[in-house]
Amino acid sequence: VAKRLEKFKTTIFTQMSSLAIKHGAINLGQGFPNFDGPEFVKEAAIQAIKDGKNQYARGYGVPDFNSAIAERFKKDTGLVVDPEKEITVTSGCTEAIAATMLGLINPGDEVILFAPFYDSYEATLSMAGAKIKGITLRPPYFAVPIDELKSAITKNTRAILINTPHNPTGKMFSREELSAIASLCIENDVLVFADEVYDKLAFEMDHISMASVPGMYEWTVTLNSLGKTFSLTGWKIGWAIAPPHLTWGVRQAHSFLTFATSTPMQWAAAVALRAPESYYVELKRDYMAKKEILVEGLKAVGFKVFPSSGTYFVVVDHTPFGQENDIAFCEYLIKEVGVVAIPTSVFYLNPEDGKNLVRFTFCKDEETLKAAVERMKEKL
Amino acid sequence: VAKRLEKFKTTIFTQMSSLAIKHGAINLGQGFPNFDGPEFVKEAAIQAIKDGKNQYARGYGVPDFNSAIAERFKKDTGLVVDPEKEITVTSGCTEAIAATMLGLINPGDEVILFAPFYDSYEATLSMAGAKIKGITLRPPYFAVPIDELKSAITKNTRAILINTPHNPTGKMFSREELSAIASLCIENDVLVFADEVYDKLAFEMDHISMASVPGMYEWTVTLNSLGKTFSLTGWKIGWAIAPPHLTWGVRQAHSFLTFATSTPMQWAAAVALRAPESYYVELKRDYMAKKEILVEGLKAVGFKVFPSSGTYFVVVDHTPFGQENDIAFCEYLIKEVGVVAIPTSVFYLNPEDGKNLVRFTFCKDEETLKAAVERMKEKL
Ligand SMILES: CSCCC(=O)C(=O)O
Ligand SMILES: CSCCC(=O)C(=O)O
Repeated sequence: VAKRLEKFKTTIFTQMSSLAIKHGAINLGQGFPNFDGPEFVKEAAIQAIKDGKNQYARGYGVPDFNSAIAERFKKDTGLVVDPEKEITVTSGCTEAIAATMLGLINPGDEVILFAPFYDSYEATLSMAGAKIKGITLRPPYFAVPIDELKSAITKNTRAILINTPHNPTGKMFSREELSAIASLCIENDVLVFADEVYDKLAFEMDHISMASVPGMYEWTVTLNSLGKTFSLTGWKIGWAIAPPHLTWGVRQAHSFLTFATSTPMQWAAAVALRAPESYYVELKRDYMAKKEILVEGLKAVGFKVFPSSGTYFVVVDHTPFGQENDIAFCEYLIKEVGVVAIPTSVFYLNPEDGKNLVRFTFCKDEETLKAAVERMKEKL
Repeated sequence: VAKRLEKFKTTIFTQMSSLAIKHGAINLGQGFPNFDGPEFVKEAAIQAIKDGKNQYARGYGVPDFNSAIAERFKKDTGLVVDPEKEITVTSGCTEAIAATMLGLINPGDEVILFAPFYDSYEATLSMAGAKIKGITLRPPYFAVPIDELKSAITKNTRAILINTPHNPTGKMFSREELSAIASLCIENDVLVFADEVYDKLAFEMDHISMASVPGMYEWTVTLNSLGKTFSLTGWKIGWAIAPPHLTWGVRQAHSFLTFATSTPMQWAAAVALRAPESYYVELKRDYMAKKEILVEGLKAVGFKVFPSSGTYFVVVDHTPFGQENDIAFCEYLIKEVGVVAIPTSVFYLNPEDGKNLVRFTFCKDEETLKAAVERMKEKL
C-alpha cells in the first residue's frame, strides 16, 4: 500500500457492518436505511434503463440532472448557479470530497477539520498531501471554538471543511457560527468545503448552507448527494456546486477519478430532486418519529444522550455501562447485546477525544429501532 | 486547480463529443455504442431496483458479483482467485485505474507507460506523484521495443502499465511480448497494471491476460469493466483483480475515492458475467462485421489504415488529406465533413509522435458507419 494510505484501516462502517452480519446483530451502525427509496424515483430509473439511457453520461453530468440540481439549490438557498459551469455530478458525495481535495489542494496546503469528522476527509487530504489541523468540537453542544479557529489559520491555510448537519454528532452550525467562519475565510483567503448531505434531515432548526452566507458563494464548494434524502444510499449519486474557477479543479480531478457517473441513475435523480415539497415534509416527519423512539429508548436504557439537531445519528455517552472505551463498548454491544453502534474515536485525530462516545443511527424502521432498544434494556 | 492537474485539459473525449453534438456530426470519436446493451442485463438491473437492492453495497463489492468476476476470470485465464480477498469492485475501470495508482504508487516511484496511452493513466500517475517514463510504440505494428523497455527500468521502477487489446491502436500484446515483459518484471521486482477492458473484443488473435503468464499473477493488477463487453458504458462498473497484498492497496484507495459502487447495477453485472459463451461469440461476430464496414470504407476513402487486432478502434494515417496535424484534421473532419474522430497526439507524452494518426471507432450500428464513410467519400 502507498504511504499516503498506510495509516488508514478498513473503514469503520465496513468493519461494523460485517460484524453485524456475522453476529446477527441489529445494525444501528452504518447509516443506510433498512427501508426502500420512493417508488417514483425507482420507476424513473427503470424507465431510463428501458429507454436506453445506458451509455456514458457527459463527464460532469447529464444536462437535465445538472439543471435539476441548480433548481433545487435555488429553492434551498436562493442562489442562482449555472448548471453548465458550476455543477459537477460525481459517484456519491464520497467522490465529490475526493475530487475536491485532489482538484484544489496542493501538497503542504493546510486544511482545517472540525473533529469528530467523517473518515474520508482525512484520507483524501492525505492523498492530496495536505497538512491537517484539527479543532475539536466538545460535548454537550459541539460548539465551534471561534478563537481556536482564528489562531489555527495561517498564511498556508487553504480551506476549512465543515459538515452541517454534522456526522456523527447531529450538531448543526448556527448562523452565528457560519458567519464567524465566513468572516475569517474572506479575510484570510480561505475556502470552505461544505458537506451538506444531511441538509434535508434538519429537525430542531433550519439548515443553513454555507454558500448562502453573504459573500461566501465565491469561496465555497457545496457537496451533497441523493442517498440520504431519498433513502437510496446504494445509487452513489453526488455532486459539487462551486463557482467556475473552483469547479474547474473539481472537474479535472473527477475526470480522472471516475470520468462520469451512472447515466440511468442520473436521469432518475433528476426526477427525485424535482419532487414536490410534500416529499421533504413527510421525510422529516417520518424521521422525527424514528428519532423520538431511539432517543427516548436510549435514555430509558440509561445512556446520556447528547442533543442532535439533524442527520439520522445521535451520539451518547456509554460510560455508565463500565466499558473501558468506545471500541470495547461497541464490541460488547455487538457480542453480548446484539446491537451495532459506531465508536467515535475513529472520527478524531486524537482517538482519546472520542473514547466516551458512540453513535447510533435511527434510519431504520420503527420495529427495528424498538427491537434494538428492547435488547439493550434487557442485556445492558 | 491543484498543481498535480494543471497540465491536463478537458478530456479529448468530452471535447469531441460536445463538438459532435454542436455540429450534428456523426460521432466515431468517443468509444460508446449507439445501440443498447442486452435485454437480460437491463432486466436484471430493473429487477434489482424493484427488489430493493438500493442501499450501500459492501465497499469492495456485492458478494455475488465478486464471485461472478472470479468465475469469469477462471474461465478466461484458468486462474483461481479468492473473490473475498483478491477482487475490488469500482465505479468503472477509470476508478480502478485511479485506485491502483493512488493505492500502490508512492511519490517518486517510476512507472513505465507505452505511448500512445489512455489519458487517465498519466493524470492519475500525476495525482500519485509518480515519475512517468514513456516508451513509444510505432506504426505499423506498434511492437514493444524490448531493449528500450529493458534500459528504461531502474531500481526505482515500480510498475509497467499495459493495455491489451490496446486503445487507440487495436494492437494486442503477443505471447512473446508478454513473456519478455514478465521476465523483466520478475527479475526487477516490478508490477504490471494490466488494463484489459477490451479483452472480449479480440478479433485477429486470442486475448492473453498478463496475469496468466506463468509466474505473473503475483505481480499483476488486472483491470476490467462491464461497459465494453455489454454495451453499457454508462453503468460505470469496473473491477481490479490482484493478489491480496496488492488488493489491500487498491481497496484502501477505493474506500476513500467512492467507498462503494451502485448496488443494483452490481447485481445486474453479476448476471451479465454469467452469460452463456454464445453471448461473447455473437458480440465478436457483430463487431467483426462492423469493423469490416469501417475499415474497407476508410480504405476506399483513401486512408492508410493500420492493422487493428482488437478493441473497437482503428487508427489511420490522415496525411493524404493535406492537414497540418491530427488536431487540424479532426477539426476539418468535424466542420467540413461532419464526422468525428479522435486525434491521437493527446495519447502521447510527446504530441509530435501522434500528429499523423487519428482514431475512429466502429462501435456504432452499420447504418451509422456507412453514413460516415459516405460523408467522407463525398467531402474529403
Ligand atoms: C460510506 S458509510 C457512509 C457514511 C454514513 O452513512 C455513516 O457515517 O454511517
Ligand atoms: C471515458 S471515454 C473512455 C474511453 C473510451 O471509450 C475511448 O477511448 O473513447
